[in-house]
Amino acid sequence: MPADTMEAPRTQFRSIDAHSGEAAGAEFAVHGPADVDAACAAADAAFDLYRETSSEDRATFLERIGAEIVALGDVLIETAMRESGLPRARLEGERGRTVGQLKLFAGVVRRGGWMGVRIDPALPDRAPLPRPDLRLRMIPLGPVAVFGASNFPLAFSTAGGDTASALAAGCPVVVKGHPAHPATGELVAGAIRAAVAACGLPAGVFSHLTGPGNDLGTALVQDPRIAAVGFTGSRGGGLALVGLAQARDVPIPVFAEMSSVNPVVLLPEALRARGAALGTAFVASLTMGAGQFCTNPGLIVAIEGDGLDAFVHAAAEGLEKADAATMLTGGIHAAYEQGVAALQANDAVETVAMGKAGQGVAQGRAAFFATSAAKFLADKALGHEVFGAASLLVRCKDEAEMRSVLAASEGQLTATIHMDEGDTTLAARLIPLLERKAGRILANGWPTGVEVAHAMVHGGPFPATSDGRSTSVGSLAIDRFLRPVSYQNLGAALLPEVLRDGTSVPRLIDGVTA
Amino acid sequence: MPADTMEAPRTQFRSIDAHSGEAAGAEFAVHGPADVDAACAAADAAFDLYRETSSEDRATFLERIGAEIVALGDVLIETAMRESGLPRARLEGERGRTVGQLKLFAGVVRRGGWMGVRIDPALPDRAPLPRPDLRLRMIPLGPVAVFGASNFPLAFSTAGGDTASALAAGCPVVVKGHPAHPATGELVAGAIRAAVAACGLPAGVFSHLTGPGNDLGTALVQDPRIAAVGFTGSRGGGLALVGLAQARDVPIPVFAEMSSVNPVVLLPEALRARGAALGTAFVASLTMGAGQFCTNPGLIVAIEGDGLDAFVHAAAEGLEKADAATMLTGGIHAAYEQGVAALQANDAVETVAMGKAGQGVAQGRAAFFATSAAKFLADKALGHEVFGAASLLVRCKDEAEMRSVLAASEGQLTATIHMDEGDTTLAARLIPLLERKAGRILANGWPTGVEVAHAMVHGGPFPATSDGRSTSVGSLAIDRFLRPVSYQNLGAALLPEVLRDGTSVPRLIDGVTA
Repeated sequence: MPADTMEAPRTQFRSIDAHSGEAAGAEFAVHGPADVDAACAAADAAFDLYRETSSEDRATFLERIGAEIVALGDVLIETAMRESGLPRARLEGERGRTVGQLKLFAGVVRRGGWMGVRIDPALPDRAPLPRPDLRLRMIPLGPVAVFGASNFPLAFSTAGGDTASALAAGCPVVVKGHPAHPATGELVAGAIRAAVAACGLPAGVFSHLTGPGNDLGTALVQDPRIAAVGFTGSRGGGLALVGLAQARDVPIPVFAEMSSVNPVVLLPEALRARGAALGTAFVASLTMGAGQFCTNPGLIVAIEGDGLDAFVHAAAEGLEKADAATMLTGGIHAAYEQGVAALQANDAVETVAMGKAGQGVAQGRAAFFATSAAKFLADKALGHEVFGAASLLVRCKDEAEMRSVLAASEGQLTATIHMDEGDTTLAARLIPLLERKAGRILANGWPTGVEVAHAMVHGGPFPATSDGRSTSVGSLAIDRFLRPVSYQNLGAALLPEVLRDGTSVPRLIDGVTA
Repeated sequence: MPADTMEAPRTQFRSIDAHSGEAAGAEFAVHGPADVDAACAAADAAFDLYRETSSEDRATFLERIGAEIVALGDVLIETAMRESGLPRARLEGERGRTVGQLKLFAGVVRRGGWMGVRIDPALPDRAPLPRPDLRLRMIPLGPVAVFGASNFPLAFSTAGGDTASALAAGCPVVVKGHPAHPATGELVAGAIRAAVAACGLPAGVFSHLTGPGNDLGTALVQDPRIAAVGFTGSRGGGLALVGLAQARDVPIPVFAEMSSVNPVVLLPEALRARGAALGTAFVASLTMGAGQFCTNPGLIVAIEGDGLDAFVHAAAEGLEKADAATMLTGGIHAAYEQGVAALQANDAVETVAMGKAGQGVAQGRAAFFATSAAKFLADKALGHEVFGAASLLVRCKDEAEMRSVLAASEGQLTATIHMDEGDTTLAARLIPLLERKAGRILANGWPTGVEVAHAMVHGGPFPATSDGRSTSVGSLAIDRFLRPVSYQNLGAALLPEVLRDGTSVPRLIDGVTA
């Protein structure tokens, strides 16, 4: 938050070293209602200026944020390693993704298609009534509250996809930093503040609030100046924010990315041809990053047969060799252990294989379970996410059972099909069902590894997200923070520049792409 | 609803002749939960087939609905006149608008831009990781529940904008017909059913449920197969539907167009130049259709002076000559009378003029009130809509008071500025404020008369609508019923046709319009 509006913090907190489980490093402010008020007031005051910055200025600002993040150097990576327990290579990659994401949005802002310009010229001679001059553009909603995610301390946190897309849309951002990585968050917030200053923007364009517990986030969502919320986290957390947002005098949209088991369907010919190879590849996807991905393959659906046996055998063999990995926080680890224990204790579930036990703090041990379609259909809890490297195979007798399992599953971020050419007709029959369930459909890949691109959807029907009409990754994410305004018979002197005659942004003239 | 799934109605109801207030004409079924279940089951069963109809087939279907409505002939107009009390010319115009709206969406469907196609081709050689082939399209949400509006028995009802845009998107529609015009609704529903049959589509693509009271609508919104809701009506009704939709196991979006007083700002130079003419034109807009438009000018904001006096004088003179007009229903008339009486009884409000009293049933008498900015700001209720030909002038001392009044007003469908060239700088200062308040900004016109066009926004921040990111009029309305799906590495055999190489719909390739 802007330094000049910050009140003295009432208490402080320190971050936890993920490897030791001990508090370490600098102390951070526990921000309270007065800080929320100041940050939202500053954001609101900055809104009208910021939303009318030129495309070039706004794009430059986004790129500058990226440059400032890079300029932080290795201290950012080391800090994130300490706080998250994630390895160096992963965090270096994530930094690249964070910077790339900002550049992607800079390009989007420069091209201007996001403004959705539509022009229906006046028809003064139309009978029985003339048509007025109508021009439409998308404008930003207002200040956006962003809740950073624990599992991507860079790419989905302080300067992550929600922040980048909201800033690209022209919305000031108030980040509620994730308490699992306050030092990382504060370094990144400093980079954004430096970019704000370097670009001569008002400080209220970006604020960073820190603190453990829920009071801070509650106050932020309830602030009347906040116009939308971006969130990545648990189903419980997301639904709580939706409830708060709906209970306001003026309800606001919440874009919460919450919960997904990402069904992977193994079709018979693919299993027959390469069941063992699929099993090995599955373990690699499942255990990557200690399984702490929203797109982790948590549900495998396949028809029984030799190919499936080969898959299970190879998966079990690979899993038993998989090392335990440090999880992001003690809380996430405890929830994972609880989820795994519940599956182990469930009579309807067979434990196929467990990864190696770890030594040390918050060691997540991979786990692979199996059940039958009938048992899966009888117990809704078996379809719930266990966040971490745990997955459940549902053995189906035939296509009909496979369809029933998929139809019974909740909304998902992704649905994957592994197939060979001989599976094509079966796959074609499944796709309409998968389209109704998921935001992204993959063939012959693994759902982990979300490309930041124009054609990406990282979203999906409830409860994958709170608004299945949105994505939180990729350039389409900007649409979440926009709304249309139509200008009728405004003269050139009053029209926004982008709506005047002769501008070159992509637009519809009388409904036709021009 | 499809005839073959209809259960025997348990009771019946008849429509009310708006002019006599008496029940008249045929009896209509009071549909219940079993009818809702059957209609939703049929809609859900029809969804996968209907959503993959070709653009040409779907466009033809929309046009055929229009042709079938025209083919109903004069009986439709006479029935609507009897049920709504609206005059012939208005309803003939509304029929033209309804048919034109269907044609507009047919054009949109044919052009294909609504599918939002995006293609990011594979980059197999990219380092450190290859990029997969990613292709995105918008798909329809699923069956949509449409609640017809009383005030547009054709253009916002059974085959109105919500139905047209949902069908265009590929969503089957279940209409909950407005009980104020069941005979009109059933005629139009018959036209849609005829088009469904003529186009060889499954009957579940369209169902029409009738009945008074709230149980029917409640059951419809709660049905798990309904994926979205379109509604035009009161704030209370809209918020009730939003509450039901949010309380479902799987919440769904509700697009409710609810409440707006449509501030009209009269700027000093315009008032000076033509205060009296503005007053006369204001009365024409206010009293059109007995004031029963969502965009009725219910709030006038102006700075005191001779020009404003001339406006008030002319408006009062015109209003006192205005005949009373039959309102849509006895309930709407009673609510209007109550709203007018409350303003008359309010010490902070001066009654400037009243229209002529009417003789007969449900006669709406125009009413023009005035208050000061200070009094307006002290009583939130003065900003609430009185549905009908009532308007409140807020006299401001200066620009600062005018800004305060506009800033205090809730979200609006429209905001209008009347201005001359000398008002331009003042108007330019107001526009950022109006953009934050309204979905459509007009200069030197009146908000009634909503063009059905590509660049129209008939929406706006809460409580004008429940989702300020949407419009219910114009081709952008289709976006409400769509969600994105990304396809990763699907071969041509499995890709939707529109995403294969070589198709000609408007699209983004690597983020660039192609």
